[in-house]
Amino acid sequence: MLDQIEAAMERLRGVAHRTPVLTSRQLNEISGAEIFIKCENLQRGGAFKFRGAYNTISQLSDQQKKVGVITHSSGNHAQAVAITGGLLGIPTVIIMPNNAPQVKINATRGYGAEVVLCEPTQEARESTVQALIDEKGYTLIHPYDNDNIIAGAATTALELLEDVPNLDILVGPVGGGGLIAGSSAYAKLSGKVPYVIAVEPRGADDAFRSFYGDEHITSQNPITIADGLRTTTSKRTLRLIKEHVDRIIKVTDAQIIEAVGFMMERMKIVAEPSGASTVAPFLFSKEFAGKRIGIIISGGNMDISVLKNGLVSLDNSLD
Amino acid sequence: MLDQIEAAMERLRGVAHRTPVLTSRQLNEISGAEIFIKCENLQRGGAFKFRGAYNTISQLSDQQKKVGVITHSSGNHAQAVAITGGLLGIPTVIIMPNNAPQVKINATRGYGAEVVLCEPTQEARESTVQALIDEKGYTLIHPYDNDNIIAGAATTALELLEDVPNLDILVGPVGGGGLIAGSSAYAKLSGKVPYVIAVEPRGADDAFRSFYGDEHITSQNPITIADGLRTTTSKRTLRLIKEHVDRIIKVTDAQIIEAVGFMMERMKIVAEPSGASTVAPFLFSKEFAGKRIGIIISGGNMDISVLKNGLVSLDNSLD
Repeated sequence: MLDQIEAAMERLRGVAHRTPVLTSRQLNEISGAEIFIKCENLQRGGAFKFRGAYNTISQLSDQQKKVGVITHSSGNHAQAVAITGGLLGIPTVIIMPNNAPQVKINATRGYGAEVVLCEPTQEARESTVQALIDEKGYTLIHPYDNDNIIAGAATTALELLEDVPNLDILVGPVGGGGLIAGSSAYAKLSGKVPYVIAVEPRGADDAFRSFYGDEHITSQNPITIADGLRTTTSKRTLRLIKEHVDRIIKVTDAQIIEAVGFMMERMKIVAEPSGASTVAPFLFSKEFAGKRIGIIISGGNMDISVLKNGLVSLDNSLD
Repeated sequence: MLDQIEAAMERLRGVAHRTPVLTSRQLNEISGAEIFIKCENLQRGGAFKFRGAYNTISQLSDQQKKVGVITHSSGNHAQAVAITGGLLGIPTVIIMPNNAPQVKINATRGYGAEVVLCEPTQEARESTVQALIDEKGYTLIHPYDNDNIIAGAATTALELLEDVPNLDILVGPVGGGGLIAGSSAYAKLSGKVPYVIAVEPRGADDAFRSFYGDEHITSQNPITIADGLRTTTSKRTLRLIKEHVDRIIKVTDAQIIEAVGFMMERMKIVAEPSGASTVAPFLFSKEFAGKRIGIIISGGNMDISVLKNGLVSLDNSLD
């Protein structure tokens, strides 16, 4: 797997942004730790997802590339696939729910993808995708249940550790689990980081329950502001997480919103709730004082109206 | 002057952040240019001001350092002086208007500075500063009318040109003029950039009128959302600007607010209105298509409540 991650890094050099690593004196003071923030919100498409999409799609056969790719997502993965399709000149179809914000539909089309709308249910999404695969022969690019997606996502940790060696702890968010599965595997298999923490919203704690229990729990009606973390682990990502992650910490939406505000006000960067969630544990605890900690911010895609409304509703949720 | 700037860079290495340079495919498409954004909003204290403050204060005599420094500002310069004083263990007094936001007063005290409040008038500020200098012997650290402040600010351009050689145009904001005076001087004296543009808010266009006229105009009741650019050039900064800047472009507050929103939504970084002002010309014109352009974002200090209110009032100002 280490080989796959290193090969992914070679594919991505000069194509993906090498995102900066930022520090914050204030965050260090609050946490007592020395924290290094890997800013995937500054990645192409505004999230780490481009790494996996490009790593996967660029390895398809010529025939697969000619026919094209398909995925269902209204989030960061859709944009990553659309950008990659545009870069490589590959036909790209994105299935989105018909209640997706027009701005997201337009943005995805702006990257050159064909957007097909369906009813906003899991069944409609899957049946629409399957019908198009059956009819046209598209290759499905799953957002996380795919070894090449995971290896691409893992290059986030690889880059961070090139820039900041000698971390005591690596921290990433867990939703579907591709990012933390790949990053924790890289951290442990390379021998570079002894301890990995995944962060999950309390209202979508399926990974937590699977990790500490005996069953594979899938999320049921997750309720969290961190829309990117409402997805649920696959067998593949859960297996890697159980093997390489040491602990899962749950955070509340109020804590996540505090973290979004902290990053905007103090660090001057826009992290979406899913992205900022990983900072939350260190704003509210000195448990990790004295450690050198690398934290992955997964993405930054929020529109300003959401931000305004989010901040208003935040005031309520903190009451 | 080139020597002074290079010496300032040596002083700042390992002390100031080497801020990242970001690019945006969307900004390039809108402008038709190839744009490189130097992110001084990610500098220590959230603005380029730390460069000048540290360069100036670190060169004071032992006696001056022992007695301490003073400045009047409720903005980014105050924080830069306070941070520097804390780093170097130098007593630091900041005169702030008694209507300054409590959060700014607290932040400045948080850096270890003594904050003295005065009536919110120019006269009260100056007389309070002068009385304390007379009484205690503090050294005044002027926010821009000072060669060492200007040389420190100029290291912004030096770093940008180390990272991105072969720029056709360098762009910076003009308020008091320290940043653009130093940066334009570096660009021209080093021979590295043939053309420099300063950007100024239409409601505070004293530099524009001085630059294109025969008199030194000082600002009278400037009205702009870009609070950091309400200050007025000094003879020293205006002379450098007239020598090394090729053009001053005026932007409206509505354009500045669009630029703040663009940077948050598309580039995932928080730039205060003064900082984002330099991007505005390239969001509304293709005049510079085909050029390689380096743009300095001067700072990112806004609190979230201001942002919320600002965005609300923005909706009005765009009507």
